[in-house]
Amino acid sequence: MTTATIFGKGNMGTAIMGIFEDADWQVQILDSKTTPSTTIEGSIVILAVPYPALTAITGTFSDQFKGRIVVDITNPVDFNTMDSLLPAADSSAAAELQTKLPDSQVLKAFNTMFAGNLSSKKVGPNQATVLIAGDSKDAKSELANVIKKAGLNAIDAGSLKRARELEAMGFLQLAMGVAGKLSFDGGFAILQ
Amino acid sequence: MTTATIFGKGNMGTAIMGIFEDADWQVQILDSKTTPSTTIEGSIVILAVPYPALTAITGTFSDQFKGRIVVDITNPVDFNTMDSLLPAADSSAAAELQTKLPDSQVLKAFNTMFAGNLSSKKVGPNQATVLIAGDSKDAKSELANVIKKAGLNAIDAGSLKRARELEAMGFLQLAMGVAGKLSFDGGFAILQ
Repeated sequence: MTTATIFGKGNMGTAIMGIFEDADWQVQILDSKTTPSTTIEGSIVILAVPYPALTAITGTFSDQFKGRIVVDITNPVDFNTMDSLLPAADSSAAAELQTKLPDSQVLKAFNTMFAGNLSSKKVGPNQATVLIAGDSKDAKSELANVIKKAGLNAIDAGSLKRARELEAMGFLQLAMGVAGKLSFDGGFAILQ
Repeated sequence: MTTATIFGKGNMGTAIMGIFEDADWQVQILDSKTTPSTTIEGSIVILAVPYPALTAITGTFSDQFKGRIVVDITNPVDFNTMDSLLPAADSSAAAELQTKLPDSQVLKAFNTMFAGNLSSKKVGPNQATVLIAGDSKDAKSELANVIKKAGLNAIDAGSLKRARELEAMGFLQLAMGVAGKLSFDGGFAILQ
């Protein structure tokens, strides 16, 4: 049986666990109490944690992440102002992560969806669609297969450079949600 | 009768003309043969031209644009590479335009929609929704009223700073369309 490792037991981590389970994957779920001695079991590792937590996790587990697919789902928003993203304007959280994990295949995915849409597999009347950016076609394809098997749609959004646009989109959606312009079971749907 | 001025007779200009006409506005439509002596009639001016054309138009008409709502719909993509946006990473075409037109109320709108969706007023089964960013609440409200009267939805996406995210979203959608990942009657739908 194939195994995924998910860091984070919040709304997003729980929803993504459901997707992997629906695709018949086993899930190792880790929380903030995880110690450096923990053995990472998953061929796909999902970092379903807030952006500031990425530094500590990569510091501890970069060796174990080698050769694995590492999925960044963060929306690295300045939550004090809700008015900007934290990474450099010409970069992204995912690009920063790839720099820290040169021997892993970093993907950006799930960040343009609210947790509720991942669970219901719908955005309004539309099938929920996960956009995936990354430089490894094989890694994107492996993650897309899991998502599609679970009953959602998945689209290759391009190279890891496109993580910048995915993070802009996730930020915009979140800011509009917080401002009451979107409901958290609505949001951005993608029609092919 | 209220009048809008539209620069540009391409797919987007034509679709936006249809929206204003459906909302019972009169439309003055201008093309590249427009001379500096042309009188701008519209209280709302839509610049439905490619990004590089903005410089010449603002150079010629900045005085006449004073006091008017000026709507930037561009996706300022480097079409040679389809791999980046042209404005500085921490700016946007709309922010540049506001700097050139300090006495106009610049809005970013329409750039996250394909022309076909503006004409059909649908994205898949969903009502087409125009996102509007800008620093003048009154200007956003005036444009939103036109769009809603024409049968589309419109949402205030925040201050003009959010044009950066709208341009990222428009670029991503366009890049995915060109890559064959989205059809040009599909794209991003917004569910409230």
